[in-house]
Amino acid sequence: MWDRLLTDCHIATMDPAIATPFGAIEDGAIGIQDGRIVRVGRRTELAGFRARSVEPLGGAWVTPGLVDCHTHLVFGGNRAHEFEMRLQGASYEEIAKAGGGIVSTVGATRNASVEQLAEAARPRLQALMRGGATTVEVKSGYGLDVATEIKLLKAAKALGDSEAVRISPTLLALHALPPEYKERREEFVRIAIEEMLPAAADAGLATAVDAFAEGIGFTVEEARALFAAAKERGLGIKLHAEQLSNLSGAAMAARYGALSADHLEHVDEAGVAAMAEAGMVAVLLPGAFYALRETRKPPVDLLRKHKVGMAVATDCNPGTSPVLSPTLMLSMACTLFGLTPEEALGGMTREGARALGLGHEIGTIAANKAADLCVWRVSRPAELAYWVGLPGPEKRIMAGVDS
Amino acid sequence: MWDRLLTDCHIATMDPAIATPFGAIEDGAIGIQDGRIVRVGRRTELAGFRARSVEPLGGAWVTPGLVDCHTHLVFGGNRAHEFEMRLQGASYEEIAKAGGGIVSTVGATRNASVEQLAEAARPRLQALMRGGATTVEVKSGYGLDVATEIKLLKAAKALGDSEAVRISPTLLALHALPPEYKERREEFVRIAIEEMLPAAADAGLATAVDAFAEGIGFTVEEARALFAAAKERGLGIKLHAEQLSNLSGAAMAARYGALSADHLEHVDEAGVAAMAEAGMVAVLLPGAFYALRETRKPPVDLLRKHKVGMAVATDCNPGTSPVLSPTLMLSMACTLFGLTPEEALGGMTREGARALGLGHEIGTIAANKAADLCVWRVSRPAELAYWVGLPGPEKRIMAGVDS
Ligand SMILES: [Zn+2]
Ligand SMILES: [Zn+2]
Repeated sequence: MWDRLLTDCHIATMDPAIATPFGAIEDGAIGIQDGRIVRVGRRTELAGFRARSVEPLGGAWVTPGLVDCHTHLVFGGNRAHEFEMRLQGASYEEIAKAGGGIVSTVGATRNASVEQLAEAARPRLQALMRGGATTVEVKSGYGLDVATEIKLLKAAKALGDSEAVRISPTLLALHALPPEYKERREEFVRIAIEEMLPAAADAGLATAVDAFAEGIGFTVEEARALFAAAKERGLGIKLHAEQLSNLSGAAMAARYGALSADHLEHVDEAGVAAMAEAGMVAVLLPGAFYALRETRKPPVDLLRKHKVGMAVATDCNPGTSPVLSPTLMLSMACTLFGLTPEEALGGMTREGARALGLGHEIGTIAANKAADLCVWRVSRPAELAYWVGLPGPEKRIMAGVDS
Repeated sequence: MWDRLLTDCHIATMDPAIATPFGAIEDGAIGIQDGRIVRVGRRTELAGFRARSVEPLGGAWVTPGLVDCHTHLVFGGNRAHEFEMRLQGASYEEIAKAGGGIVSTVGATRNASVEQLAEAARPRLQALMRGGATTVEVKSGYGLDVATEIKLLKAAKALGDSEAVRISPTLLALHALPPEYKERREEFVRIAIEEMLPAAADAGLATAVDAFAEGIGFTVEEARALFAAAKERGLGIKLHAEQLSNLSGAAMAARYGALSADHLEHVDEAGVAAMAEAGMVAVLLPGAFYALRETRKPPVDLLRKHKVGMAVATDCNPGTSPVLSPTLMLSMACTLFGLTPEEALGGMTREGARALGLGHEIGTIAANKAADLCVWRVSRPAELAYWVGLPGPEKRIMAGVDS
C-alpha cells in the first residue's frame, strides 16, 4: 500500500532512458512511498497498485521539481539604488562614490547576523519555491572573511531547516578580493584555502567550493590551488568560468573532476571538449546575460556537439542577476540562448541536479528518486518555456508532501 | 468615520503634483471610503481622522494598482508548439504548414464559445492580477469576423464581471486580413467599419478601437477610415504604430485625438511631436521586443524631449508576447529600453491610466480616485523594477477591498 498515487496526468520524466521528447509518459501515474517515487509508468501499468491517497490530476503535466543550481541567494541589503542611479545616467565612478558595487553588499552582509541574513533571503527563497524550485544551491561569497562566509553558510542552513526545500550549500571562497587585501592578494588566497575552506568543511556547512576566475576576479592558478585543497577533502568543485573572457578556467576545472563550469559565454572548443571528457555540466545563466545586456551567448552548438549537459539557473544575486523566477529562466534560456524548451526544462531539472552532484537523488522522475515534483496546468511541457513570467506550478510536492 | 485608514507606510503616489521622486510621501497614510481614496498625506496630517479599520503596514510601500493598458488577453489555444518548433530549427514555411501563426489562433478562437474563451483567459488574467494589475485592457482581434469579435468582447466582459479587476475593452477591428478576404481587402475594411464597430459600440462592449498599421497589417489610410467612424461614436482611439517600420501612423492618430500609439520602435521626431501636441501617450511594450529579439528600441530620449508620457504594458498575446507578469515589464522597461524605475512605474500606473482615458479615475494615489492600490514589502520603489521576476504585491486592494 503506497502513500500516494498521482494519476490522470502526463509526466515529463526528463529521464533520458525514456526515448520520447521530455521523457514523456502520456496518461501516466506515479506511486509515492516514504517521500520517494516507487513507480512511474502508464496509468494502465499502475492500475493494480493501491495507495492511501489516489489523486487524479485532471490531465495536468507533472515534472521533476525545479533545481536552481546556481544562486547567491543570501546577502545583506540590495542594489536597487545603484540600479536606479545607473538608469538615471550616473557613471560607475559616481556609483562607487555613493557606496555601490559588491563592496556595498559585503558591508551590509558583514553587518548582519545569521538570523537577519536568513530573514532577508527568505522572501527570495519563497519566490523561487513558488516558481517551482524544490532544490536551490546557495553560495556564500559576500563575506570575504572567514567569520562572515561561515555566517552566510549558517544562514543558508537555517533556511533549508525551516523551508520545504533542499538547500545545496557552496563555499564561494574566491569571489572578490576585499579592498583591505588589495596589496596582500596572496595572503587572502591563503586564508581562503587554509582557513575558510577547512572551517566550512569541518562544520559540514558546504558540500562544494566555487571560485570566480576572471580578470576582475581571481586567476585560474589561484582557483586551481583552492580546488586541489577541496579535492583532498572530497568536496564538489564548481567554477565561474569564461563569463567575460576566455581564461581556460573550465579546462583547468575539468582536470580536478569539477561538477560544473558556470556562465561560459567565452569558452572555446578546447574548454568544451575538456568538460565533455570530465563529464562536467555547463551551467547557463541567462538572467545575468539579460541584466548585464550582454551580447555574446554561450556556445550552445558546441556544447551540443560535444554532448555536454546544459543546466540553467537564476544566478540570483544582488549585483548582476536579481532574478526571482525559475520559470522565467526557462523562457530566457530559449529566447536569449536558443535552447529548445526540452533542453531548458532538462537544464532546470536533470542537468541542474547533476551540476550539484545530486543526479542520483533528484532531477528526473524515476523509481527510487526523491518525490520532488511540480504539477502544471499546461497542455504541453513546452508551455513552461513559452510563457514569459509564468507564476509557478499549481502544486509543488517536496519529498512526497504538498507544500 | 472612514472605512479604512492605511498607515505606517510610504506612498509612491505617482502624482506629478507632488514634487518628489515617485510623488513619494514617506511615513504616510491613506483614508478610504466607499471604494475611493478620500485623503492621502503624511501620517501626522491624517492623525485626527477616524476609521472603522486602522491598518498599520509596517513600513511597506503603497503604489497605485498597476494598469496593464495593452493586452490581447482573450484567445483560443496558444502557440507553445510553434515556439518549440522554431527553437528546434523549423522554418517559417514549416511552421505555417503545421498550422502556425495568427491563423491558428483565429481558428481556435472561432471554435470556442464565450465561456470557453473566458475560462482559457482566466488563469492569464489571474496571473496579471497576482502580479499587481488592478486594471487590464483587453483587445479583441482574433475573430476577424463580426460574430467572433463580439464573442471576444463578451468574454472580456465576463472576466471583468467575475474577477476583482477593471477590464477596459477595446475593439481591435483591423488586426489581420483573414485569408478568406485575401482578394477582397476593401470588403473586409468596410465590414470592420460598418458592421464590427457599430455592433461592438451599440452593445456597449468596447470603449475604444484599435488597428494594426504595418506593412503586414493595414495601411494608415485604412486605419484612418476606422478612426473617423470611431470618433463619430465617441470611442477612444488607439493604434499599433511604427513597430516594424515608420508609416507615420502615430501622426495620423494624433489628428483624430487618439489616446495612444503603441510599440513605436520606428517612430520619428515628427511623429513624436504630433503625439505631444495631441496629448497622446506612447505605450511601450518591452515583452514583444524581448520575445521577438528585436534590436531597435523606441526613441525614449525623443519621447522625453517632447514630454510624451510613456506607458508600459505586457502586450500579453499568444504570438509575439506571451507575457504574464506586469512586474517583469517594469524590469524590462528599464533594462531593455532604458527607462528609469520611476518612469517604468509611472508607465504602469499614471500613464497606463491615461492611455485608457481613465486618468481621472485611476493611476495615481490622490483624493477622489478609486482606491486601487498595491502594498509591496520593499525598501524603496525602485526595487519593483530592480528584481527580475518579482512575484507581486503582498496585498492588492481593488476599489477599497482586499483581493
Ligand atoms: Zn554566480
Ligand atoms: Zn498589441
